[in-house]
Amino acid sequence: MADIVSGKEVAEALKQKLVDEVDELKSNGIIPGLAIVLVGDRPDSLSYIKGAQKRCSEIGIDCRLVQLPADTSEEEFVSRIRQLNQDRSVHGILVMRPLPATISEDRVKYEISPLKDVDCFNPVNMAKVMSGEEGGFAPCTPSAVMEILDYYGIELTGKRVVIVGRSMVVGRPLSMMMLKRHATVTICHTRTVDLAKETSRAEILVAAAGKARMIKKDMVGSGAVVIDVGINFDENGKMCGDVDFEAVKELAGKITPVPGGVGSVTSTVLAKHVIRACRMLIDQEG
Amino acid sequence: MADIVSGKEVAEALKQKLVDEVDELKSNGIIPGLAIVLVGDRPDSLSYIKGAQKRCSEIGIDCRLVQLPADTSEEEFVSRIRQLNQDRSVHGILVMRPLPATISEDRVKYEISPLKDVDCFNPVNMAKVMSGEEGGFAPCTPSAVMEILDYYGIELTGKRVVIVGRSMVVGRPLSMMMLKRHATVTICHTRTVDLAKETSRAEILVAAAGKARMIKKDMVGSGAVVIDVGINFDENGKMCGDVDFEAVKELAGKITPVPGGVGSVTSTVLAKHVIRACRMLIDQEG
Repeated sequence: MADIVSGKEVAEALKQKLVDEVDELKSNGIIPGLAIVLVGDRPDSLSYIKGAQKRCSEIGIDCRLVQLPADTSEEEFVSRIRQLNQDRSVHGILVMRPLPATISEDRVKYEISPLKDVDCFNPVNMAKVMSGEEGGFAPCTPSAVMEILDYYGIELTGKRVVIVGRSMVVGRPLSMMMLKRHATVTICHTRTVDLAKETSRAEILVAAAGKARMIKKDMVGSGAVVIDVGINFDENGKMCGDVDFEAVKELAGKITPVPGGVGSVTSTVLAKHVIRACRMLIDQEG
Repeated sequence: MADIVSGKEVAEALKQKLVDEVDELKSNGIIPGLAIVLVGDRPDSLSYIKGAQKRCSEIGIDCRLVQLPADTSEEEFVSRIRQLNQDRSVHGILVMRPLPATISEDRVKYEISPLKDVDCFNPVNMAKVMSGEEGGFAPCTPSAVMEILDYYGIELTGKRVVIVGRSMVVGRPLSMMMLKRHATVTICHTRTVDLAKETSRAEILVAAAGKARMIKKDMVGSGAVVIDVGINFDENGKMCGDVDFEAVKELAGKITPVPGGVGSVTSTVLAKHVIRACRMLIDQEG
């Protein structure tokens, strides 16, 4: 029977550290600021924003929502990003994705200042994730996975890690982050032949495929650490992960639930990144 | 007994296509131009440049060497790169690395125009390799590996690929390029526990660790495709790869030799990238 990993516990512990950091910044007259840019009104984006705003407010970060109409042109969007790049009260910028089809992500992603790019939208930051260079920002979700592993003292060096999913928001960057920490990393996806054979070998298995309960009990090795990044809704409208939690918990060593796992840590990681961006600016200005 | 893959054959076939492309460009009054920037006079760099110049000349690319003194300052170097970015007769720029310690690669890499960056120095291109976005340039060495696999019709979809080595010039970008082609990719390195167990599972094994003949016969599965990216010199000064070629060829399905394998294709891939950069410029200018 697996230990159930509590994302909330990880988030709370991280939050306490961040509150102290913000207190210190405030005693020097500095309030870390985050601008969340939303074009349109997608319900999933609004739901994420609500959680992020709550978290920021608990930690003492000034969180501002910049909501633009769904028909905002690319030029208007870029001009707004440039204003935020210049705005000295804004230390972090989060652009909610996907953007509407009228705005090309592949063009506008270069506009956000890499120093304020707290969720790794700008390719400059993605390249740093790939090379392992310090001083950039990794995307919040794979960073939340790393926070969980570190909180529970799960060593990565030499471990066989299998990641299911090759997206740019989780699978690919996480593979590079795990590699930097000296894990032996395998990336699987929809075209993998005999997925169960691959996943069964994992000492640490990360499910980030976006398919409800696809990781079954016979796909997991006994004692494995199972990290579920999926957020899906089943046929009854119930939120669930990519892992068949009830069955897999019988044999895993550790497992993250959904909800209450990785997703509970993401917004606190976002806050951590904003505070780091704020400190970087202070350091830069001396 | 393995089929010995001929890098020269791959390079010759590619060269013929490139000669035709350059002929067409020349009939429109355009000569593709490459500038190779060398700071100092490292013998390995000079040796590579000699091969590249020969290849470019055979194909009809104008290849210019910009050799700067070893004590060139970062400012002088950046200013030279900016001149080359502006120079309309230069379509591709190759900066020989490593640069001397006085020039920070992490700072200057952003200066080279991504459109002329034919060996993936600029992080903008590295991020495109990571995301699989079209229109960028991957580094020449992993691109040479892909040329070889494609020339021999080796399918990647669903294949178990194991890459030994996690460098930014080969292992990491190659893992992303293989992933884009739907392979199941495992990246191993010095901290991998039981390397032989991992490499033995490979249907396609890429050795890019930079350690002479480290891949022994008992580390390779029968019938595997073995691609050797290593260029080492053994205790007798003889050039050799990362694979114990004489032993491994007994059981591999296909194997690249060293010399005569991947290294024979790299400079032709460089020429291919210069021609593509030239075409991109023409397309951009209408």
